[in-house]
Amino acid sequence: MKRHLLSAADLTRDDAELILSTAEELRSLADRPIKKLPALRGRTIVNLFFEDSTRTRISFEAAAKRLSADVINFSAKGSSLSKGESLKDTALTLEAMGADAVVVRHWASGAPHNLANAGWSRSSVINAGDGTHEHPTQALLDAFTMTRHLGPMDGRRVAIVGDVLHSRVARSNALLLHTLGAEVTLVAPPTLLPYGVDTWDVQTSYDLDAVLPKTDVVMMLRVQRERMNASYFPSVREYSRRYGLDARRMATLQDHAIVMHPGPMIRGMEITADVADSKRSVIVEQVTNGVAVRMAVLYLLLGGNEPALSTGEDPTGSAAEGENDA
Amino acid sequence: MKRHLLSAADLTRDDAELILSTAEELRSLADRPIKKLPALRGRTIVNLFFEDSTRTRISFEAAAKRLSADVINFSAKGSSLSKGESLKDTALTLEAMGADAVVVRHWASGAPHNLANAGWSRSSVINAGDGTHEHPTQALLDAFTMTRHLGPMDGRRVAIVGDVLHSRVARSNALLLHTLGAEVTLVAPPTLLPYGVDTWDVQTSYDLDAVLPKTDVVMMLRVQRERMNASYFPSVREYSRRYGLDARRMATLQDHAIVMHPGPMIRGMEITADVADSKRSVIVEQVTNGVAVRMAVLYLLLGGNEPALSTGEDPTGSAAEGENDA
Amino acid sequence: MKRHLLSAADLTRDDAELILSTAEELRSLADRPIKKLPALRGRTIVNLFFEDSTRTRISFEAAAKRLSADVINFSAKGSSLSKGESLKDTALTLEAMGADAVVVRHWASGAPHNLANAGWSRSSVINAGDGTHEHPTQALLDAFTMTRHLGPMDGRRVAIVGDVLHSRVARSNALLLHTLGAEVTLVAPPTLLPYGVDTWDVQTSYDLDAVLPKTDVVMMLRVQRERMNASYFPSVREYSRRYGLDARRMATLQDHAIVMHPGPMIRGMEITADVADSKRSVIVEQVTNGVAVRMAVLYLLLGGNEPALSTGEDPTGSAAEGENDA
Repeated sequence: MKRHLLSAADLTRDDAELILSTAEELRSLADRPIKKLPALRGRTIVNLFFEDSTRTRISFEAAAKRLSADVINFSAKGSSLSKGESLKDTALTLEAMGADAVVVRHWASGAPHNLANAGWSRSSVINAGDGTHEHPTQALLDAFTMTRHLGPMDGRRVAIVGDVLHSRVARSNALLLHTLGAEVTLVAPPTLLPYGVDTWDVQTSYDLDAVLPKTDVVMMLRVQRERMNASYFPSVREYSRRYGLDARRMATLQDHAIVMHPGPMIRGMEITADVADSKRSVIVEQVTNGVAVRMAVLYLLLGGNEPALSTGEDPTGSAAEGENDA
Repeated sequence: MKRHLLSAADLTRDDAELILSTAEELRSLADRPIKKLPALRGRTIVNLFFEDSTRTRISFEAAAKRLSADVINFSAKGSSLSKGESLKDTALTLEAMGADAVVVRHWASGAPHNLANAGWSRSSVINAGDGTHEHPTQALLDAFTMTRHLGPMDGRRVAIVGDVLHSRVARSNALLLHTLGAEVTLVAPPTLLPYGVDTWDVQTSYDLDAVLPKTDVVMMLRVQRERMNASYFPSVREYSRRYGLDARRMATLQDHAIVMHPGPMIRGMEITADVADSKRSVIVEQVTNGVAVRMAVLYLLLGGNEPALSTGEDPTGSAAEGENDA
Repeated sequence: MKRHLLSAADLTRDDAELILSTAEELRSLADRPIKKLPALRGRTIVNLFFEDSTRTRISFEAAAKRLSADVINFSAKGSSLSKGESLKDTALTLEAMGADAVVVRHWASGAPHNLANAGWSRSSVINAGDGTHEHPTQALLDAFTMTRHLGPMDGRRVAIVGDVLHSRVARSNALLLHTLGAEVTLVAPPTLLPYGVDTWDVQTSYDLDAVLPKTDVVMMLRVQRERMNASYFPSVREYSRRYGLDARRMATLQDHAIVMHPGPMIRGMEITADVADSKRSVIVEQVTNGVAVRMAVLYLLLGGNEPALSTGEDPTGSAAEGENDA
């Protein structure tokens, strides 16, 4: 595995499967009374957020703390960056302070790549969402959730529905699911499909009703209300009617098919409340799995390639500490 | 004890006394060189603040960390809630991430109840102040402080003075003190008493000077300057003159009587500086007691009903960890 | 050593040398796999920031966490201070909550002194920058960095270049370097030298080119663009030409001389990119040293006067914990 996780395209099938199997091991931790392993004790993880994203930040923070790492949150608003410091100097500063990993969310596509190429010798960069580009840990947690319900993804069909154009979630999922052998169909109006989508390893469709009966997974994307204006789509109501998931449409799914959403969702917009709360919905489970997958990513990038629990089986945090980093 | 702490009215006399005696045990921790117990190691406590309240947040954060819990702070400004997510989905998300307790401060009365009723199966909700409704841990720390100075509260007289109408502190204190057997008198101008106060288990008075000589405790409420306009009171100066506590008034108290304030206070407004710093004032002690009482609440909601220190007597945090959650 | 660190002037030569030698011990921790000592376990350190300073806050936070202290961040914007509470009451509140040290950054010169004089009996105050007054830990990390490169500072020449008038970094460095026996020259246009500078133990110069060939250290100060208007200097371009450090000027330094900058720097303004990235530049090292020096300060103020590592040699955090505070 590479030292950084910048794009879902960086992951080989072996990498991805190692992350998913490590996450499976770590997920069992959630059932223990003490949900904490000493694996990353003494390591420092910086959450560097140039854009608000409470869910993603909390998920990474919970993951890091369960591995006993120290977490430093850095909301870049009002920071020295706004006083004229370059991203490169911020990067050098964080490594110099001893950050072992920097989890970065940025409004600009490509910013995590720039950070990772700033001349670091030691720190890992994890892309927690950059512009409309990628969000690889979201794709990993989605794949993890699918695998838990459907088994290996080879030949499985996944429909990703909505504003693909602006969605880093869609982009990272398309890449990772292809690596894992699944068939992805992007469902959106033509104005919300990205330019050049014909070069992606996906199929596209404008017709949700035609796609639903054949898919194993339907992943609804969040509608970003601020982008819903005449240049993309006639109206919110029309969007919901054509691309929203309601009970009638859900009834056309195969029995085993599951419904996903990266959250936060707007009930009544892209998904109705009864669908969100239905038995097919694994939306809350995605959140739980997000913590396990991020633990796995942090563990594998910072801690080594051995199974996570074998070096830290003792949940009391005392006996194994001397050995973790040997 | 219930799983949540939403209102002082939820507490039976036994519940309240268990919290106070647990707090008494935990308070002794403050005198040790290592002020830390392993009781909540591996538990995650989320501070979910929709309204700024540095004091309350820090007090809960210090309490949780002394019990070795992991703390995640979540200031809801700019969060996905502002992107349209419902409080219910925030609640489901936090539980899915593994939050064992959510400490919530909200500008809307009743929000913690809504959170607690969102379908959680495991997490506890602690109301850290909601609108003008309640602030039960404040009432508990106040009762704890009174008890330390005056012994059991049966038959004791407590005067709560000031803007009762907007005060969640007054409301929670009135409820809890009644449960503990004390007699409460609310002292305020008629415009600052809540509608329906005649149904509360309290007495009311417009005349501070008449009440002071008979009371054991005088609790001054903060004047919220932004609410001091003509609709409630003629002027700030007039308010101070009628309902402020100064040295002359303090001299009319009984010898054993104490002066309290939930803070932050505005010296010279509802209380003069010499009163705030006098020997009768227990205001700074209230702050110290706040940490002990919040430790007790977190411990009892998350850790069991046994005495706190017996499972975690060893302050080094190593030996007892395997047993805490047995 | 005193209980607080408010000014570089508070430090005797012995104090300063104890901090530097402790920092040298602690710096070696950065090379270990587990960068954590149990020395301050159970202690609470509050970062009280009335002014944004991500770098300084993160540096103190990393330092405290490596010593196993609990850290509570308190950004004073929107806090009860803005509701009318006095700094004194904030101080009393933080001590009452059990803060062992308060690291304070304030826009007002002298605020940390006021905090320290608020009647505390136990907490330590560390000045992390107050107005245009002082920033003593910056001076300590600078002296630490110089000593590592040049040995003892007696008779060494240090040029501090730029906006001395508004620089707490310059002021603290001038004081500490004098204590350590170095000769300081402040280089600035007359409008950017403080009134009364003739009473400082420094030399002054308006001519950077004349100073460079004789100095052992050149420390460039950050240009605060918002202060660069006609009242201080004709133009930014003219400032760069007269007081900026570029490759041509750097070539006139002695072979062993080093280039420093407190950061954040504006490449192309007070320092060119090639100088910032040159072999003479120790700017990134200053950041690393900042964490070690702050660990030393926290350790010495809170933990005792013995060598830091002797009480906490065991990096697992278990064996030594009972003894740290004996």
